[in-house]
Amino acid sequence: MQTPEIKPALFTFELLAQDGGARAGVFHTPHGDIPTPIFAPVGTQGTVKSLTQRHLVELDAKLILANTYHLYLRPGDALVAGMGGLHKFMAWDGPILTDSGGFQVFSLANTRQVDEDGVIFKSHIDGSTHRFTPETSIAVQENLGADVIMAFDECAEPYDRAYNLSAMERTHRWAERCLAAKTREDQALFGIVQGGVFPDLRAASAAFIADLNLPGNAIGGLSVGETKPEMHAMIDVVNAILPQDKPRYLMGVGTPQDLVECVDLGIDIFDCVLPTRLARHHAAMTDTGRVNVMNAQYARDERPISETCTCYTCQTHSRAYIRHLIQAREMLSGTLLSIHNIHTLLNLTARLREAIIAGNFTSFARAYLSNLKS
Amino acid sequence: MQTPEIKPALFTFELLAQDGGARAGVFHTPHGDIPTPIFAPVGTQGTVKSLTQRHLVELDAKLILANTYHLYLRPGDALVAGMGGLHKFMAWDGPILTDSGGFQVFSLANTRQVDEDGVIFKSHIDGSTHRFTPETSIAVQENLGADVIMAFDECAEPYDRAYNLSAMERTHRWAERCLAAKTREDQALFGIVQGGVFPDLRAASAAFIADLNLPGNAIGGLSVGETKPEMHAMIDVVNAILPQDKPRYLMGVGTPQDLVECVDLGIDIFDCVLPTRLARHHAAMTDTGRVNVMNAQYARDERPISETCTCYTCQTHSRAYIRHLIQAREMLSGTLLSIHNIHTLLNLTARLREAIIAGNFTSFARAYLSNLKS
Repeated sequence: MQTPEIKPALFTFELLAQDGGARAGVFHTPHGDIPTPIFAPVGTQGTVKSLTQRHLVELDAKLILANTYHLYLRPGDALVAGMGGLHKFMAWDGPILTDSGGFQVFSLANTRQVDEDGVIFKSHIDGSTHRFTPETSIAVQENLGADVIMAFDECAEPYDRAYNLSAMERTHRWAERCLAAKTREDQALFGIVQGGVFPDLRAASAAFIADLNLPGNAIGGLSVGETKPEMHAMIDVVNAILPQDKPRYLMGVGTPQDLVECVDLGIDIFDCVLPTRLARHHAAMTDTGRVNVMNAQYARDERPISETCTCYTCQTHSRAYIRHLIQAREMLSGTLLSIHNIHTLLNLTARLREAIIAGNFTSFARAYLSNLKS
Repeated sequence: MQTPEIKPALFTFELLAQDGGARAGVFHTPHGDIPTPIFAPVGTQGTVKSLTQRHLVELDAKLILANTYHLYLRPGDALVAGMGGLHKFMAWDGPILTDSGGFQVFSLANTRQVDEDGVIFKSHIDGSTHRFTPETSIAVQENLGADVIMAFDECAEPYDRAYNLSAMERTHRWAERCLAAKTREDQALFGIVQGGVFPDLRAASAAFIADLNLPGNAIGGLSVGETKPEMHAMIDVVNAILPQDKPRYLMGVGTPQDLVECVDLGIDIFDCVLPTRLARHHAAMTDTGRVNVMNAQYARDERPISETCTCYTCQTHSRAYIRHLIQAREMLSGTLLSIHNIHTLLNLTARLREAIIAGNFTSFARAYLSNLKS
């Protein structure tokens, strides 16, 4: 049996409105309120690639994600703790979420051995050997000091039932160990639901994680190769079981389409590297679809990337100028496209929230998705 | 015989104060006033590398340099003209100066043939063959539309007297052809003094260029391998001849030390790629010398790069964070160091100007240089 491990005053979720499955709320944290639904830009190494922290303030970012695996390896969580924690180290005074390192250990690093205790892996930077357990993941995340920290989980391939069953059960035992290891009251631990593409496993996992009574819950292991209908079906199964009065975080998602569709399914928080990664590959995310700004057709195009966009990039520069920067391999193209792409997702979640509160989410979502596909 | 080719109202230089050889003034241009002495950040390809135009406004940059050779090759000056000119294309509404392309043709490109008419060269980008003459340089610069444009010159090795004599004489003939080719009244053409390290050639060149009665004059062919005493001697010779009532632009210089020493010799305008190039190589320019922020000693250093600096980088971030960004190969390190380095030079020229106006330039300069070397 679990008892609430966080003082209610520090981390509370207010559900302000519901429209069908879609929810609008506010998640209160020690570093500020997070209006939901919300998209969290990813600052893997303590920096949202190519943006200054002032850009993030101007973009009205409300929650930034950082990666425990990366910061553990470089510059090291002890160094970050010695510098006053991640907020002070990266000069971001708003809410931060760190993942557990689990996903990176299983995807980026050379994983050497997984057992009940934890994972031995080799660094992708220098090949050095390291060991992560639920306890070390929590210790590292406590050193980093984010507002929201994640339980250490085992990530399985989505279609292997036997592996998903064992990984899910281990993820549950590890979540209990994370909760037991946690010492800081100014951090909220979120559990992670696993179970691949198997509805019964997802349901069992959601029930187990919900029963931990944590201040928030996450859905992991999606958007990793399964189909969209499978992803949506898993979210549906899980959200029917997760409590209404806690935020629900869908990890590693997504695109504008994903945001609209998954808010409809009751998701509150998203994160994804896509806006900054696409920016470095010359692509702009817009409300009408993706635009490759390097295309020759934009060479003399005086219009902004999106004529309705209010971001700094679109208010300042033409497609022709951005295309020139890309052709000339100038760093500024990545900065300008990152500003635009993150704005697109943050502006979208803000409009989704307004629509939910106004009670016209369904018509907004239908119009948006139809426009997106045109 | 020459007649003034620019309406006085568009380009005038007001000399506000002199302190020894040092001068404080204002150069009026159609896109704004340039207080002198001033340092101009270099935006080679229509972007000051890694900075948004808003960063430049926040840095209080008063004059930006762009390179004719680079913009001619990519995206092409006709394209820039079609987009409304360089100010509109790069979204920089302040004064811009373009060089003539001469220096790049002789240094970057594979120069195939120089004759009285001009230069045939191969592009450093794709090896294609191009021809620049004084007339094409002016035509390209008129397409780009900068406020200040430069005469096309032949750049020689500083120590070869015979070559410097012939290159200087050709530079003079080309300057006359540039003046004759020029058609736009909203652009100021500056002539360029050449002559290597030879005082008599420099004096002859200064006299010739001064006689063209252009709205400003530049000194080229320095900081290209000669010694500091040689550079200073050449500036001294030239500035004794160039008119007092026109701005004097020392091309491609410099360091904080250069700025102080050359303002003392009567220079008004500087440009250099150093602040942004050093930034990309992890070095910070400070009032007390250069700092390589990658050094291990800064790993846990909570201080800003410079404790007296008022730039965004120093007001926001520690040495430890910037070192982490460098180690992690994050683009943001280049942006933060570029902001700091350009601020250092702009702040220095602003303080030099104040000191000249206050009549204490000599003591300011002595204290600054002594601090710099300590």
